[in-house]
Amino acid sequence: MFQIEKALERGKCFIKDLPLSRVLLQDDCRFPWLILVPRVPSAQEIYHLTSDQQHVLMDEVSLVSKVLQDYVQADKINIAAFGNIVPQLHIHIIARFKMDEAWPHSVVGLKGSLPYSLADRDKIVKDLSQMIFFS
Amino acid sequence: MFQIEKALERGKCFIKDLPLSRVLLQDDCRFPWLILVPRVPSAQEIYHLTSDQQHVLMDEVSLVSKVLQDYVQADKINIAAFGNIVPQLHIHIIARFKMDEAWPHSVVGLKGSLPYSLADRDKIVKDLSQMIFFS
Repeated sequence: MFQIEKALERGKCFIKDLPLSRVLLQDDCRFPWLILVPRVPSAQEIYHLTSDQQHVLMDEVSLVSKVLQDYVQADKINIAAFGNIVPQLHIHIIARFKMDEAWPHSVVGLKGSLPYSLADRDKIVKDLSQMIFFS
Repeated sequence: MFQIEKALERGKCFIKDLPLSRVLLQDDCRFPWLILVPRVPSAQEIYHLTSDQQHVLMDEVSLVSKVLQDYVQADKINIAAFGNIVPQLHIHIIARFKMDEAWPHSVVGLKGSLPYSLADRDKIVKDLSQMIFFS
């Protein structure tokens, strides 16, 4: 049965379920940051997915990256599947700006966070849940 | 015309061309580390590729991850497409060990490197160029 590890859920908000993956928002207003979690029990590496699941995951990574880019007009999209701390397969999709406080370094695994205000968070979740869909 | 940016080639060795991507070895013996560069001029983001190209890229990421894992028996494979410093689209595939000097942190963008001996590098390039193929 699919379950998201507690450590992976912490500090995140549900946005929506795509055909393969659950889309989460990282609650950190410093970096517009989404996370895809394929709903495949026990998967820790991309090659643990079937070939069909891998292609759907790529469709979802591409879609979510493009929507995030359109939404925030970032300078660069950063994509990463690490899992050194939380092994459950998850893909970070992060909008980066040349003016953000960590540029040009990776922000995956950065300690601490600066949560959104409730109003901002609700708006982002609502906006993105509408924008992220397969036409 | 496809060309790899000079900054991306630096400190790397050619392994082989797959249908979409060039496979390079990062010349740093601390971390077994491959890089895929899709041979698509001007691509900087995954969503700049066509849907077919994205699926081939996923096949290649999966294949190369699995081969690297089989070759070095890593604890975790790290995959990243950042491009904050070198914008040409490239995907890092890195074998990580709980005993490596940077665990559990990301090593993408780490300063400095510890080159392989020529003999080790030649052996790795030869082994991986034989192991990385589509059956």
